[in-house]
Amino acid sequence: MKLLYTFACILFLSNSICAQDFSDKITLVIHGGAGTITRANMTAEQEKAYRSVLNNALQQGYKVLQGGGTSLKAVEAAIMVMEDSPLFNAGKGAVFTNEGKNELDASVMDGSNLKAGAIAGVTTIKNPIRAAIAVMDKSPHVMMTGKGADLFAKEQGLEIVDPSYFYTEARYKALLKAKESEKVELDHTEHPKKDFKDKPKTGYNDNDLIFTEGKKFGTVGCVSLDKFGNLAAGTSTGGMTNKRYGRVGDAPIIGAGTYANNATCAVSATGHGEYFIRSVVAYDISALMEYKGLSLQNAADEVVMKKLVTIGGEGGIIALDRNGNIAMPFNSEGMYRGYIRGNGDSQIMIYKDEARK
Amino acid sequence: MKLLYTFACILFLSNSICAQDFSDKITLVIHGGAGTITRANMTAEQEKAYRSVLNNALQQGYKVLQGGGTSLKAVEAAIMVMEDSPLFNAGKGAVFTNEGKNELDASVMDGSNLKAGAIAGVTTIKNPIRAAIAVMDKSPHVMMTGKGADLFAKEQGLEIVDPSYFYTEARYKALLKAKESEKVELDHTEHPKKDFKDKPKTGYNDNDLIFTEGKKFGTVGCVSLDKFGNLAAGTSTGGMTNKRYGRVGDAPIIGAGTYANNATCAVSATGHGEYFIRSVVAYDISALMEYKGLSLQNAADEVVMKKLVTIGGEGGIIALDRNGNIAMPFNSEGMYRGYIRGNGDSQIMIYKDEARK
Repeated sequence: MKLLYTFACILFLSNSICAQDFSDKITLVIHGGAGTITRANMTAEQEKAYRSVLNNALQQGYKVLQGGGTSLKAVEAAIMVMEDSPLFNAGKGAVFTNEGKNELDASVMDGSNLKAGAIAGVTTIKNPIRAAIAVMDKSPHVMMTGKGADLFAKEQGLEIVDPSYFYTEARYKALLKAKESEKVELDHTEHPKKDFKDKPKTGYNDNDLIFTEGKKFGTVGCVSLDKFGNLAAGTSTGGMTNKRYGRVGDAPIIGAGTYANNATCAVSATGHGEYFIRSVVAYDISALMEYKGLSLQNAADEVVMKKLVTIGGEGGIIALDRNGNIAMPFNSEGMYRGYIRGNGDSQIMIYKDEARK
Repeated sequence: MKLLYTFACILFLSNSICAQDFSDKITLVIHGGAGTITRANMTAEQEKAYRSVLNNALQQGYKVLQGGGTSLKAVEAAIMVMEDSPLFNAGKGAVFTNEGKNELDASVMDGSNLKAGAIAGVTTIKNPIRAAIAVMDKSPHVMMTGKGADLFAKEQGLEIVDPSYFYTEARYKALLKAKESEKVELDHTEHPKKDFKDKPKTGYNDNDLIFTEGKKFGTVGCVSLDKFGNLAAGTSTGGMTNKRYGRVGDAPIIGAGTYANNATCAVSATGHGEYFIRSVVAYDISALMEYKGLSLQNAADEVVMKKLVTIGGEGGIIALDRNGNIAMPFNSEGMYRGYIRGNGDSQIMIYKDEARK
């Protein structure tokens, strides 16, 4: 009888552990890129517009988590809001390549099983984050590039758009400015703008609201913890204005721009991608937690505020662990960022002097 | 006088430390891919051919190191030998994509400054490793993909070839076999073989010597330590037979297929790339050394023989630290591998039962 009681106790205890409820810990953290974002060079109207989209992204992701959805679905929902907004350098609003095209990169990782997906250099996928998820879920591969990745997304039934969908006047002007500053003569006969005469008009002029952070920054990302205790991370970008030669940054590189592992953390990065690749930024934060026992905040600070600063790598990251701890260090002037927690507590920040509540 | 003497001693000591001579430690390690390579399924003639090219690669790399050249130049020289041989899945001898093309990936990293370069999905660059080095040395970028990367290599004056250069009958047959086993109907009107009627004849039939390791393996790589004490790593591949959708594996991913850091080690990987990306294999070995204080061998074994095995990731790696320690674990049936040391000691191995002297 005593033995039976002990057995029952063990069974109860193990069930409690297995079915640990993370409902009170559901959390979603987003970023919308880092760069020289200061109060001095942003209008009140621009700031309002950015905060509005960031809030919408948080709310859409939170809705998924609150409804019992997975962190992966929440990451997808939040990032799609930012991809669909012309204000961020991802999806609609992506920057232009030297050739006047928009080439998009994205990646995603599921912390519960270490599965991952990424696409690079695509030109027709409306929501690159969904294509990265499809690569992870529907193919044996982790990374697809170029036309092949576009074809895969089409075959998977994802929404395909004409490349002109990604045109925004502000980003195109940024390309012209970048080219001018390089003293590279632009052949206006190759100017893609003429192909966009029939582009749909929006109610107000988005282009006045788009803030150009500089040549090397701009990416969106999300990390999330669901009620099952699973972490996920995703990142999406248009890359660098005036990029050449099929350049790819850290956003689609698992371990650099994106990483998630239930044992440690979920990370999404934004910044000067070349330095982030060389520093294997996202996985390094995970490794510092796993191998050196650092807290999420200390690991994130070590990589972003020390190691990256030493080699001149500007930018920032958002990170989240399984206990709902958040870190969002950046060594640039500013970073669009925000979070929302299970109790509905939410905060959106842009500038350096905005501290977390 | 005493002070002067002390000062002179300090100066002598610091000079000795600064100019520490690694001449006796110069080392070069190569791999030519991992897979189901067993004595039972390889002919004596094939084995002889493979050992001969591996030896030539070691000698070419060693010549650079002995002549006082850098580890980076040695890595380039050794990998070029394997790229130029039809026996290995890199450069000439690359496997075919589902569309009947050869799409090549490569990457390189300099352990002295953590600079890196990579190219993915190129089709016209004779020696992809040289293009990866050019990306690192001649551009502000780390990774270039597709036609853009091909164009960059051309502008840099690297040797450009017609895509037909990469055709080998054995690899093309492997594609047909892979397609048959998938029960995918091949449209023979798209058969690229007909375009290769005029391909140059070699003295003997290379194709009889090419050993097909299986669908998912085959890559070449090199790690090296020069007399300056600098580590470097490089990797080059044709990817997976029958790959689709612009699939990219771990070879061009810094941190996954390639990593080098004087503080820890240089690593080049070969295997089922998807698992190697998800496990951030090359950087993980470095992180285990740096953060947990593991030896090179223990760190390499932990990742290849434990962590990768747990998630089903087949393959292996070669690794080298600044003290000239070598590790070359693999969890597959075999791995083409070899090393050469400053004293000329050299060994080439293929099968699992061949132990290091």
